[in-house]
Amino acid sequence: MELVLASNNPHKVTEVRRILNGIAVRTPAELGVSFAFEETGSTYDQNALGKARHLHSLIGMPTLADDSGLAVAALGGAPGVRSARFAPPGEELDDAGRCAYLLSLLHGAAHRSAAFICCIAIVLDAQRLLLVQERVAGRIAQQPRGARGFGYDPVFLVGGGGRTMAELSDAEKDRVSHRGRALRRAGALLRRPAPPAS
Amino acid sequence: MELVLASNNPHKVTEVRRILNGIAVRTPAELGVSFAFEETGSTYDQNALGKARHLHSLIGMPTLADDSGLAVAALGGAPGVRSARFAPPGEELDDAGRCAYLLSLLHGAAHRSAAFICCIAIVLDAQRLLLVQERVAGRIAQQPRGARGFGYDPVFLVGGGGRTMAELSDAEKDRVSHRGRALRRAGALLRRPAPPAS
Repeated sequence: MELVLASNNPHKVTEVRRILNGIAVRTPAELGVSFAFEETGSTYDQNALGKARHLHSLIGMPTLADDSGLAVAALGGAPGVRSARFAPPGEELDDAGRCAYLLSLLHGAAHRSAAFICCIAIVLDAQRLLLVQERVAGRIAQQPRGARGFGYDPVFLVGGGGRTMAELSDAEKDRVSHRGRALRRAGALLRRPAPPAS
Repeated sequence: MELVLASNNPHKVTEVRRILNGIAVRTPAELGVSFAFEETGSTYDQNALGKARHLHSLIGMPTLADDSGLAVAALGGAPGVRSARFAPPGEELDDAGRCAYLLSLLHGAAHRSAAFICCIAIVLDAQRLLLVQERVAGRIAQQPRGARGFGYDPVFLVGGGGRTMAELSDAEKDRVSHRGRALRRAGALLRRPAPPAS
Protein backbone atom coordinates (compact mmCIF):
# COMPACT_ATOMS: atom_id res chain seq x y z
CA MET A 1 0.00 0.00 0.00
CA GLU A 2 1.41 3.34 -1.09
CA LEU A 3 -0.24 6.74 -0.65
CA VAL A 4 0.80 10.20 -1.75
CA LEU A 5 0.12 12.90 0.84
CA ALA A 6 -1.48 16.08 -0.54
CA SER A 7 0.52 18.44 1.64
CA ASN A 8 3.66 20.52 1.56
CA ASN A 9 3.62 20.95 5.37
CA PRO A 10 6.64 19.05 6.79
CA HIS A 11 5.00 18.77 10.22
CA LYS A 12 1.98 17.00 8.73
CA VAL A 13 4.20 14.72 6.63
CA THR A 14 6.10 13.68 9.78
CA GLU A 15 2.94 13.01 11.81
CA VAL A 16 1.16 11.10 9.05
CA ARG A 17 4.20 8.86 8.48
CA ARG A 18 4.58 8.24 12.21
CA ILE A 19 0.92 7.27 12.70
CA LEU A 20 0.40 5.29 9.46
CA ASN A 21 3.41 3.08 10.05
CA GLY A 22 3.47 0.15 7.66
CA ILE A 23 1.89 2.21 4.87
CA ALA A 24 4.34 3.93 2.52
CA VAL A 25 3.59 7.68 2.46
CA ARG A 26 5.15 9.67 -0.40
CA THR A 27 5.08 13.41 -0.97
CA PRO A 28 4.39 15.33 -4.20
CA ALA A 29 7.93 16.74 -4.03
CA GLU A 30 9.44 13.23 -3.93
CA LEU A 31 7.52 12.44 -7.12
CA GLY A 32 8.61 15.70 -8.76
CA VAL A 33 5.04 17.00 -8.76
CA SER A 34 4.22 20.60 -7.89
CA PHE A 35 1.11 20.59 -5.69
CA ALA A 36 -0.95 23.60 -4.66
CA PHE A 37 -4.60 23.85 -3.66
CA GLU A 38 -6.65 26.77 -2.42
CA GLU A 39 -8.77 25.70 0.55
CA THR A 40 -12.03 27.47 -0.23
CA GLY A 41 -14.44 24.89 1.23
CA SER A 42 -16.77 25.74 4.09
CA THR A 43 -16.19 22.35 5.72
CA TYR A 44 -13.13 20.21 6.51
CA ASP A 45 -14.45 17.39 4.35
CA GLN A 46 -14.74 19.63 1.28
CA ASN A 47 -11.16 20.84 1.70
CA ALA A 48 -9.70 17.40 2.45
CA LEU A 49 -11.54 15.66 -0.40
CA GLY A 50 -10.77 18.56 -2.74
CA LYS A 51 -7.04 18.29 -2.04
CA ALA A 52 -6.96 14.49 -2.31
CA ARG A 53 -8.95 14.55 -5.58
CA HIS A 54 -6.82 17.28 -7.12
CA LEU A 55 -3.59 15.42 -6.37
CA HIS A 56 -5.13 12.16 -7.63
CA SER A 57 -6.01 13.91 -10.91
CA LEU A 58 -2.35 14.94 -11.27
CA ILE A 59 -0.68 11.61 -10.49
CA GLY A 60 -3.27 8.82 -10.84
CA MET A 61 -2.12 7.14 -7.60
CA PRO A 62 -3.95 6.72 -4.27
CA THR A 63 -3.79 9.99 -2.34
CA LEU A 64 -4.38 11.13 1.23
CA ALA A 65 -5.19 14.65 2.43
CA ASP A 66 -5.73 16.17 5.86
CA ASP A 67 -7.72 19.26 6.74
CA SER A 68 -7.59 20.24 10.38
CA GLY A 69 -8.63 23.09 12.58
CA LEU A 70 -9.43 24.41 16.01
CA ALA A 71 -13.02 25.14 17.09
CA VAL A 72 -13.27 27.49 20.10
CA ALA A 73 -16.70 27.51 21.72
CA ALA A 74 -16.48 31.12 22.98
CA LEU A 75 -15.71 32.23 19.40
CA GLY A 76 -18.71 30.40 17.92
CA GLY A 77 -16.50 27.63 16.54
CA ALA A 78 -13.86 29.94 15.00
CA PRO A 79 -11.23 29.79 13.67
CA GLY A 80 -12.51 26.42 12.30
CA VAL A 81 -11.70 25.74 8.66
CA ARG A 82 -9.84 29.06 8.58
CA SER A 83 -7.45 28.04 11.40
CA ALA A 84 -4.33 28.11 9.21
CA ARG A 85 -5.21 31.57 7.87
CA PHE A 86 -6.54 33.11 11.12
CA ALA A 87 -5.42 36.75 11.49
CA PRO A 88 -6.76 40.28 11.90
CA PRO A 89 -8.08 41.67 8.58
CA GLY A 90 -5.26 42.40 6.14
CA GLU A 91 -2.57 40.66 8.21
CA GLU A 92 -0.67 37.40 7.81
CA LEU A 93 0.63 35.54 10.85
CA ASP A 94 2.90 32.58 11.57
CA ASP A 95 2.08 29.81 14.09
CA ALA A 96 3.26 31.85 17.10
CA GLY A 97 1.40 34.91 15.85
CA ARG A 98 -1.84 32.97 15.44
CA CYS A 99 -1.54 31.56 18.98
CA ALA A 100 -0.98 35.08 20.37
CA TYR A 101 -3.90 36.46 18.34
CA LEU A 102 -6.20 33.70 19.63
CA LEU A 103 -5.14 34.37 23.24
CA SER A 104 -5.80 38.11 22.79
CA LEU A 105 -9.35 37.36 21.63
CA LEU A 106 -9.94 35.19 24.70
CA HIS A 107 -8.30 37.63 27.17
CA GLY A 108 -10.21 37.37 30.45
CA ALA A 109 -12.64 34.79 29.07
CA ALA A 110 -13.59 32.14 31.65
CA HIS A 111 -15.19 29.71 29.17
CA ARG A 112 -12.25 28.33 27.16
CA SER A 113 -13.58 25.01 25.79
CA ALA A 114 -12.23 24.03 22.40
CA ALA A 115 -11.72 21.04 20.11
CA PHE A 116 -9.10 20.12 17.57
CA ILE A 117 -10.72 18.56 14.50
CA CYS A 118 -9.01 16.50 11.79
CA CYS A 119 -10.55 15.25 8.56
CA ILE A 120 -8.60 12.61 6.61
CA ALA A 121 -9.69 11.98 3.01
CA ILE A 122 -8.30 9.13 0.92
CA VAL A 123 -8.91 8.81 -2.82
CA LEU A 124 -8.09 5.25 -3.82
CA ASP A 125 -9.29 5.80 -7.39
CA ALA A 126 -11.95 7.85 -9.17
CA GLN A 127 -14.73 5.73 -7.66
CA ARG A 128 -13.40 4.66 -4.25
CA LEU A 129 -13.07 7.04 -1.29
CA LEU A 130 -12.57 6.95 2.47
CA LEU A 131 -13.07 9.85 4.84
CA VAL A 132 -12.74 9.93 8.62
CA GLN A 133 -13.21 13.05 10.73
CA GLU A 134 -12.31 12.91 14.43
CA ARG A 135 -11.74 15.41 17.23
CA VAL A 136 -10.07 15.83 20.60
CA ALA A 137 -11.66 18.02 23.26
CA GLY A 138 -9.71 20.46 25.44
CA ARG A 139 -9.37 24.06 26.61
CA ILE A 140 -7.40 27.09 25.50
CA ALA A 141 -4.50 27.84 27.89
CA GLN A 142 -3.79 31.29 29.34
CA GLN A 143 -0.26 31.30 27.85
CA PRO A 144 1.58 29.22 25.21
CA ARG A 145 3.60 26.35 26.69
CA GLY A 146 5.78 23.62 25.20
CA ALA A 147 8.05 23.43 22.17
CA ARG A 148 6.83 20.30 20.39
CA GLY A 149 4.13 19.92 17.74
CA PHE A 150 2.99 22.80 15.55
CA GLY A 151 0.07 25.12 14.87
CA TYR A 152 -2.06 25.79 17.95
CA ASP A 153 -0.50 22.93 19.97
CA PRO A 154 1.16 25.31 22.52
CA VAL A 155 -2.18 26.87 23.56
CA PHE A 156 -4.34 23.71 23.56
CA LEU A 157 -4.72 22.00 26.95
CA VAL A 158 -5.58 18.39 26.19
CA GLY A 159 -8.82 17.12 27.75
CA GLY A 160 -9.11 17.95 31.43
CA GLY A 161 -5.32 17.79 31.94
CA GLY A 162 -2.79 20.48 32.66
CA ARG A 163 -0.46 19.94 29.68
CA THR A 164 -0.65 21.55 26.29
CA MET A 165 -0.42 19.45 23.12
CA ALA A 166 3.07 20.95 22.62
CA GLU A 167 4.22 19.47 25.96
CA LEU A 168 3.35 15.86 24.99
CA SER A 169 5.82 13.37 23.56
CA ASP A 170 5.13 12.23 19.99
CA ALA A 171 3.66 8.96 21.26
CA GLU A 172 1.44 10.74 23.81
CA LYS A 173 0.23 13.23 21.21
CA ASP A 174 -0.56 10.57 18.60
CA ARG A 175 -2.51 8.51 21.12
CA VAL A 176 -5.00 11.29 21.92
CA SER A 177 -4.76 13.75 19.05
CA HIS A 178 -7.45 14.44 16.45
CA ARG A 179 -4.99 13.41 13.73
CA GLY A 180 -3.98 10.21 15.53
CA ARG A 181 -7.60 9.16 15.97
CA ALA A 182 -8.64 9.90 12.39
CA LEU A 183 -5.54 8.31 10.84
CA ARG A 184 -5.75 5.15 12.94
CA ARG A 185 -9.38 4.64 11.86
CA ALA A 186 -8.51 5.29 8.22
CA GLY A 187 -5.42 3.06 8.44
CA ALA A 188 -7.45 0.19 9.90
CA LEU A 189 -9.66 0.29 6.82
CA LEU A 190 -6.72 0.50 4.43
CA ARG A 191 -5.06 -2.53 6.00
CA ARG A 192 -8.20 -4.71 5.76
CA PRO A 193 -8.31 -6.98 2.73
CA ALA A 194 -10.10 -5.33 -0.17
CA PRO A 195 -13.67 -6.49 -0.82
CA PRO A 196 -13.85 -9.43 -3.27
CA ALA A 197 -12.98 -8.49 -6.82
CA SER A 198 -15.67 -8.69 -9.46
CA MET B 1 -24.95 1.48 18.50
CA GLU B 2 -28.04 3.03 16.93
CA LEU B 3 -28.21 4.90 13.62
CA VAL B 4 -31.05 6.69 11.87
CA LEU B 5 -31.10 6.15 8.11
CA ALA B 6 -31.66 9.30 6.05
CA SER B 7 -33.92 7.64 3.50
CA ASN B 8 -37.57 7.03 2.76
CA ASN B 9 -36.74 4.31 0.21
CA PRO B 10 -37.96 0.97 1.63
CA HIS B 11 -35.54 -0.99 -0.59
CA LYS B 12 -32.56 0.88 0.87
CA VAL B 13 -33.85 0.46 4.42
CA THR B 14 -34.11 -3.30 3.88
CA GLU B 15 -30.62 -3.60 2.38
CA VAL B 16 -28.93 -1.42 4.99
CA ARG B 17 -30.51 -3.39 7.84
CA ARG B 18 -29.54 -6.69 6.24
CA ILE B 19 -25.89 -5.71 5.74
CA LEU B 20 -25.35 -3.79 9.01
CA ASN B 21 -26.65 -6.62 11.16
CA GLY B 22 -25.91 -6.03 14.84
CA ILE B 23 -26.32 -2.26 14.45
CA ALA B 24 -29.83 -0.93 15.13
CA VAL B 25 -31.03 1.03 12.09
CA ARG B 26 -34.05 3.30 12.63
CA THR B 27 -35.95 5.34 10.08
CA PRO B 28 -37.17 8.96 10.31
CA ALA B 29 -40.77 7.70 10.07
CA GLU B 30 -40.28 5.43 13.10
CA LEU B 31 -39.13 8.47 15.07
CA GLY B 32 -42.06 10.56 13.82
CA VAL B 33 -39.71 12.85 11.87
CA SER B 34 -40.54 14.08 8.39
CA PHE B 35 -37.39 13.89 6.29
CA ALA B 36 -36.86 15.35 2.82
CA PHE B 37 -33.66 16.46 1.10
CA GLU B 38 -33.04 17.74 -2.41
CA GLU B 39 -29.97 16.03 -3.89
CA THR B 40 -28.32 18.95 -5.66
CA GLY B 41 -24.68 17.90 -5.16
CA SER B 42 -22.40 17.20 -8.09
CA THR B 43 -20.81 14.24 -6.28
CA TYR B 44 -22.09 11.26 -4.30
CA ASP B 45 -20.20 12.40 -1.20
CA GLN B 46 -21.87 15.82 -1.22
CA ASN B 47 -25.33 14.26 -1.46
CA ALA B 48 -24.68 11.55 1.13
CA LEU B 49 -23.05 13.92 3.65
CA GLY B 50 -25.72 16.54 2.99
CA LYS B 51 -28.51 14.08 3.76
CA ALA B 52 -26.81 12.68 6.87
CA ARG B 53 -26.03 16.18 8.19
CA HIS B 54 -29.54 17.46 7.55
CA LEU B 55 -31.14 14.55 9.39
CA HIS B 56 -28.61 14.90 12.23
CA SER B 57 -29.58 18.58 12.57
CA LEU B 58 -33.23 17.51 12.95
CA ILE B 59 -32.80 14.72 15.50
CA GLY B 60 -29.37 15.08 17.17
CA MET B 61 -28.65 11.34 16.88
CA PRO B 62 -26.06 9.48 14.77
CA THR B 63 -27.28 9.28 11.18
CA LEU B 64 -26.39 7.30 8.05
CA ALA B 65 -27.11 8.23 4.44
CA ASP B 66 -26.49 6.49 1.13
CA ASP B 67 -26.10 8.06 -2.27
CA SER B 68 -25.72 5.62 -5.11
CA GLY B 69 -25.64 5.62 -8.86
CA LEU B 70 -24.72 3.91 -12.08
CA ALA B 71 -21.80 5.11 -14.21
CA VAL B 72 -21.93 3.92 -17.84
CA ALA B 73 -18.65 4.34 -19.70
CA ALA B 74 -20.24 4.76 -23.16
CA LEU B 75 -22.37 7.61 -21.71
CA GLY B 76 -19.38 9.43 -20.23
CA GLY B 77 -20.22 8.27 -16.70
CA ALA B 78 -23.95 9.14 -16.93
CA PRO B 79 -26.44 8.82 -15.33
CA GLY B 80 -24.10 9.07 -12.28
CA VAL B 81 -25.40 11.21 -9.41
CA ARG B 82 -28.59 11.76 -11.43
CA SER B 83 -29.35 8.01 -11.68
CA ALA B 84 -32.56 8.22 -9.63
CA ARG B 85 -33.86 11.12 -11.75
CA PHE B 86 -32.64 9.89 -15.15
CA ALA B 87 -35.22 10.57 -17.89
CA PRO B 88 -35.72 12.36 -21.20
CA PRO B 89 -36.16 16.14 -20.67
CA GLY B 90 -39.51 16.94 -19.06
CA GLU B 91 -40.37 13.34 -18.23
CA GLU B 92 -40.49 11.37 -14.99
CA LEU B 93 -39.86 7.63 -14.98
CA ASP B 94 -40.12 4.74 -12.54
CA ASP B 95 -37.44 2.04 -12.09
CA ALA B 96 -38.62 0.02 -15.10
CA GLY B 97 -38.88 3.16 -17.22
CA ARG B 98 -35.34 4.24 -16.34
CA CYS B 99 -33.97 0.77 -17.24
CA ALA B 100 -35.78 0.91 -20.60
CA TYR B 101 -34.55 4.46 -21.27
CA LEU B 102 -30.96 3.42 -20.50
CA LEU B 103 -31.21 0.41 -22.82
CA SER B 104 -32.58 2.63 -25.59
CA LEU B 105 -29.57 4.95 -25.30
CA LEU B 106 -27.21 1.97 -25.56
CA HIS B 107 -29.10 0.29 -28.43
CA GLY B 108 -26.52 -1.43 -30.64
CA ALA B 109 -23.60 -0.25 -28.50
CA ALA B 110 -20.85 -2.87 -28.21
CA HIS B 111 -19.00 -1.20 -25.33
CA ARG B 112 -21.31 -1.66 -22.32
CA SER B 113 -18.95 -1.35 -19.33
CA ALA B 114 -20.51 0.19 -16.23
CA ALA B 115 -20.09 0.45 -12.48
CA PHE B 116 -22.51 0.76 -9.60
CA ILE B 117 -21.20 3.25 -7.04
CA CYS B 118 -22.35 3.65 -3.43
CA CYS B 119 -21.30 6.36 -1.01
CA ILE B 120 -22.17 5.83 2.67
CA ALA B 121 -21.91 8.86 4.97
CA ILE B 122 -22.23 8.60 8.74
CA VAL B 123 -22.55 11.65 11.00
CA LEU B 124 -21.76 10.53 14.55
CA ASP B 125 -21.97 14.10 15.90
CA ALA B 126 -21.23 17.61 14.64
CA GLN B 127 -17.47 16.93 14.66
CA ARG B 128 -17.16 13.21 13.84
CA LEU B 129 -17.81 11.75 10.39
CA LEU B 130 -17.20 8.60 8.38
CA LEU B 131 -17.57 8.20 4.65
CA VAL B 132 -16.88 5.16 2.46
CA GLN B 133 -17.44 5.07 -1.28
CA GLU B 134 -17.16 1.73 -3.08
CA ARG B 135 -18.12 0.32 -6.48
CA VAL B 136 -18.81 -2.88 -8.34
CA ALA B 137 -17.85 -3.26 -11.98
CA GLY B 138 -20.07 -4.84 -14.60
CA ARG B 139 -21.79 -4.43 -17.97
CA ILE B 140 -25.19 -3.26 -19.14
CA ALA B 141 -27.32 -6.19 -20.34
CA GLN B 142 -29.22 -6.24 -23.66
CA GLN B 143 -32.55 -6.79 -21.87
CA PRO B 144 -33.78 -6.52 -18.27
CA ARG B 145 -33.70 -9.83 -16.38
CA GLY B 146 -34.58 -10.85 -12.84
CA ALA B 147 -37.20 -9.72 -10.35
CA ARG B 148 -35.13 -9.06 -7.22
CA GLY B 149 -33.40 -5.86 -6.06
CA PHE B 150 -34.41 -2.43 -7.31
CA GLY B 151 -33.28 0.48 -9.48
CA TYR B 152 -31.02 -0.58 -12.35
CA ASP B 153 -30.39 -4.08 -10.91
CA PRO B 154 -32.26 -5.85 -13.80
CA VAL B 155 -29.96 -4.39 -16.48
CA PHE B 156 -26.62 -4.66 -14.61
CA LEU B 157 -24.58 -7.79 -15.37
CA VAL B 158 -22.33 -8.29 -12.36
CA GLY B 159 -18.60 -8.44 -13.15
CA GLY B 160 -17.79 -10.80 -16.01
CA GLY B 161 -20.73 -13.07 -15.18
CA GLY B 162 -23.95 -13.75 -17.02
CA ARG B 163 -26.41 -12.83 -14.27
CA THR B 164 -27.93 -9.45 -13.57
CA MET B 165 -27.95 -8.00 -10.05
CA ALA B 166 -31.71 -8.67 -10.01
CA GLU B 167 -31.07 -12.41 -10.51
CA LEU B 168 -28.87 -12.75 -7.40
CA SER B 169 -30.09 -13.89 -4.00
CA ASP B 170 -29.91 -11.28 -1.24
CA ALA B 171 -26.76 -12.92 0.17
CA GLU B 172 -25.11 -13.06 -3.27
CA LYS B 173 -25.98 -9.42 -3.98
CA ASP B 174 -24.72 -8.14 -0.63
CA ARG B 175 -21.43 -9.98 -1.03
CA VAL B 176 -20.50 -8.24 -4.28
CA SER B 177 -22.64 -5.13 -4.44
CA HIS B 178 -21.41 -1.55 -4.15
CA ARG B 179 -23.69 -1.06 -1.13
CA GLY B 180 -22.52 -4.26 0.55
CA ARG B 181 -18.87 -3.30 0.15
CA ALA B 182 -19.30 0.26 1.37
CA LEU B 183 -21.52 -0.70 4.32
CA ARG B 184 -19.25 -3.53 5.47
CA ARG B 185 -16.27 -1.17 5.54
CA ALA B 186 -18.27 1.49 7.39
CA GLY B 187 -19.70 -1.10 9.79
CA ALA B 188 -16.23 -2.44 10.60
CA LEU B 189 -15.24 1.05 11.72
CA LEU B 190 -18.41 1.55 13.74
CA ARG B 191 -17.90 -1.73 15.59
CA ARG B 192 -14.29 -0.96 16.59
CA PRO B 193 -13.93 0.48 20.07
CA ALA B 194 -14.05 4.26 20.04
CA PRO B 195 -10.69 6.04 20.38
CA PRO B 196 -9.75 6.81 24.01
CA ALA B 197 -11.91 9.48 25.63
CA SER B 198 -10.29 12.77 26.55
